[in-house]
Amino acid sequence: MFLAILFSLSLNLWLCEAGSVIILDQEVPYVKTGDTKVKLEDAMLQRRVARNCKELHEKYQVYDDLYYLNSSRGVLYQMFCDMTTAGGGWTLVASVHENNMYGKCTLGDRWSNQQGSDPNRPDGEGTWADTVTFGTAESSTSDDYKNPGYYDIAAQDVSVWHVPNNIDLEQWSASSILRYHTENHFLNLYGGNLFYLFKKFPVRFALGACLTDNGPAIPIVYDTGNVDYNKNLYGPNSRQILTPGFIAFRVFNTEGAAMALCSGVKPTACHTEHFCIGGGGHFPEATPRQCGDFTSFDWDGYGTNKGWSASKEITEAAVLLFYR
Amino acid sequence: MFLAILFSLSLNLWLCEAGSVIILDQEVPYVKTGDTKVKLEDAMLQRRVARNCKELHEKYQVYDDLYYLNSSRGVLYQMFCDMTTAGGGWTLVASVHENNMYGKCTLGDRWSNQQGSDPNRPDGEGTWADTVTFGTAESSTSDDYKNPGYYDIAAQDVSVWHVPNNIDLEQWSASSILRYHTENHFLNLYGGNLFYLFKKFPVRFALGACLTDNGPAIPIVYDTGNVDYNKNLYGPNSRQILTPGFIAFRVFNTEGAAMALCSGVKPTACHTEHFCIGGGGHFPEATPRQCGDFTSFDWDGYGTNKGWSASKEITEAAVLLFYR
Amino acid sequence: MFLAILFSLSLNLWLCEAGSVIILDQEVPYVKTGDTKVKLEDAMLQRRVARNCKELHEKYQVYDDLYYLNSSRGVLYQMFCDMTTAGGGWTLVASVHENNMYGKCTLGDRWSNQQGSDPNRPDGEGTWADTVTFGTAESSTSDDYKNPGYYDIAAQDVSVWHVPNNIDLEQWSASSILRYHTENHFLNLYGGNLFYLFKKFPVRFALGACLTDNGPAIPIVYDTGNVDYNKNLYGPNSRQILTPGFIAFRVFNTEGAAMALCSGVKPTACHTEHFCIGGGGHFPEATPRQCGDFTSFDWDGYGTNKGWSASKEITEAAVLLFYR
Repeated sequence: MFLAILFSLSLNLWLCEAGSVIILDQEVPYVKTGDTKVKLEDAMLQRRVARNCKELHEKYQVYDDLYYLNSSRGVLYQMFCDMTTAGGGWTLVASVHENNMYGKCTLGDRWSNQQGSDPNRPDGEGTWADTVTFGTAESSTSDDYKNPGYYDIAAQDVSVWHVPNNIDLEQWSASSILRYHTENHFLNLYGGNLFYLFKKFPVRFALGACLTDNGPAIPIVYDTGNVDYNKNLYGPNSRQILTPGFIAFRVFNTEGAAMALCSGVKPTACHTEHFCIGGGGHFPEATPRQCGDFTSFDWDGYGTNKGWSASKEITEAAVLLFYR
Repeated sequence: MFLAILFSLSLNLWLCEAGSVIILDQEVPYVKTGDTKVKLEDAMLQRRVARNCKELHEKYQVYDDLYYLNSSRGVLYQMFCDMTTAGGGWTLVASVHENNMYGKCTLGDRWSNQQGSDPNRPDGEGTWADTVTFGTAESSTSDDYKNPGYYDIAAQDVSVWHVPNNIDLEQWSASSILRYHTENHFLNLYGGNLFYLFKKFPVRFALGACLTDNGPAIPIVYDTGNVDYNKNLYGPNSRQILTPGFIAFRVFNTEGAAMALCSGVKPTACHTEHFCIGGGGHFPEATPRQCGDFTSFDWDGYGTNKGWSASKEITEAAVLLFYR
Repeated sequence: MFLAILFSLSLNLWLCEAGSVIILDQEVPYVKTGDTKVKLEDAMLQRRVARNCKELHEKYQVYDDLYYLNSSRGVLYQMFCDMTTAGGGWTLVASVHENNMYGKCTLGDRWSNQQGSDPNRPDGEGTWADTVTFGTAESSTSDDYKNPGYYDIAAQDVSVWHVPNNIDLEQWSASSILRYHTENHFLNLYGGNLFYLFKKFPVRFALGACLTDNGPAIPIVYDTGNVDYNKNLYGPNSRQILTPGFIAFRVFNTEGAAMALCSGVKPTACHTEHFCIGGGGHFPEATPRQCGDFTSFDWDGYGTNKGWSASKEITEAAVLLFYR
């Protein structure tokens, strides 16, 4: 009898400690998109087993939604997981949102320079290679976004979505004008994420020369759109100097201005300021006209898709960056 | 005997799971303003039962304080609940704080335009109808504030407090120079909150004409102040073209500039830029002199309360917006 | 038998409630720097016993790391604890980071004025004496930082670290060029923290005169560096009008500009704008050249350490402020 009670004691204690986990496991099959059952509370349990959407995806059957995860330093943050594309497990870590195409390196140009085009500030904001965070997952199509995952997650590939501005997260995937991902695990070669990649290839004015000193260009697989559609999002002049089907990192233009990435395309010549985004702190040509998060997408008019100008569609879409 | 132990097992397990809830219920009668017992931990339990201060108020006997709640997408945030006014249950969702009356659409004018008065940016920041959030509940009399409740809570009425800048939250209610609320459940007609109301009535330059295209004007009940006091907060010229006892939404002025709300008053003519707040991105008259979160409250001098100028009291008070 | 089961019931219930605490106590001896075991979940337990790093240090054997704590109003926030220096128990509450020495009271000058040098805005941002918060502990060497502890913690002393920009938190202590702390519990006389000290000594333009109206200057003990090293971080001209071995608060210069603190030194004359940091909203001399978080550290060239110019080392190091 005494033994039985002891057994009762220990078993109950075990149940007590493990209770939430059991409940979690039972609930998982019923989790739906937008369901709030697997949220913060569960994240605190999951933090013991998952640091990003990939691990979360491997251990539980979950859907596209917001989740709370912990960084390696124990910073709790909320991010969006894409559990669908190419096997799922993609963590949203950042978005580049152009809040004012007419503002040339003004407030909101966090991925280039918010204080004008200035050779004294060659790195501009320095966002591509620092730990400063801003924005929220929910509003990442209405504002710039960067979470601790950007510098903390150990990843192998990137996925990019171009989502029209101000779209609600439930419609992000279906509304995207362009979606693609890499498959060759290139981040293994560059430190495991874009933070470390841009430490190796700083987005800094006058650090290198056009083409010669460009960073890697990685082949992509399209999830929405294709090479032709991708190419035509940029102006007819730009199309002459780019090859679609790649994502290119840290490129220089003729005047030594640095850009962070060319989405879906690889430059074959030097006027990259009309189709590459993000940047260092100075763009010399016709300064400050080419300076900003979406650089000089409007060189021949806003959204005209003529000459060097990009289309209205891509000019008015936030660029969401995922890791896996 | 075996049955008894089984009973012990299951009962204990139940107690284990339900333990916190029991404790919560026992603690509630002792909760005081500023008491930290019902806080984050409890919010995680409450999230199963409450999404806003109204629900929290209906289920528990609680006091004016900061609480953690969850949005429908599972975003945890902290907000201030007014559990006293007109039956209580009011959730603070935003504050409009003028950080620099001399700055005309400069940094900190998040509810109008932070990049100057600019017809190319007719929506300005777009804050009234997007999901971007900023600030904290605690500092909402020292800075602009907007939490997920602004776009997430399903509400029927609004309450507005004009609290002198930099006042501590414990003194907000007693220090307010003006407080009022609506009672007719008008938000039922406009999507359930201001986010959806301003989707229907965009705060955009040149979208409509003065008076003809103004949004709704809703009758209010005063909690601090009255129609005469309210009226006199604005300049003598303004008093000729407004009727106190209302809150008016999305109004246009003579030049087509859009304003978001007129606090406590309904305009009867077109020079609304001297007593309505928030706005789109462009104010044509004497540009940029009328552009900013508190528009042209200082047209005839800062805080003079002469001509078109508002009083110093209302110029130096943050406008706190609550839902219920 | 029945009694035994009752005992089992109550004991198990007790174990259930107390389980986490027991686990916490057992785990503590194994906690390492960077270990994520004592994190958010435990903070929720610790909030019942600890409001700052000092209390945390006294109750548990813990190491330098990020921890979650609760403010007196129940605001959960994450901060860095220095558990090593002079007995440990120091809470990081703020950092002053100069993001653009060439920008004179521009974006990012949150500790002075972000809207130019302007006599109409004598308090500038007002950050030294308000409850506005910004930044994250992790990125406090890459951006300005201020957490609720700045105004909420009841402290006696301050500690200051000058950490080179963009250094990771694991290397902060070892990388610091200068570290010191006070020992005389001076904050007891000024309200218990810098928020209250600066309420008593507002950092406001034209509120007082040089030397006569300066705030307290408190003796310091060096943890990294010494009086000679400290002195030489400032320009040769500055060295003639300062005494190292102190931290001085709210000082005025010749023209009535207010500065918030002089790190490691006490001014003996009036050209304090070359070695004191933070400020009110207006610096009259050669305006706006002396306006900014690091005021006029570059008066005789950026980082030259000639004439009135400070060294490159101190110009490119964030100033981290701790309480105990």
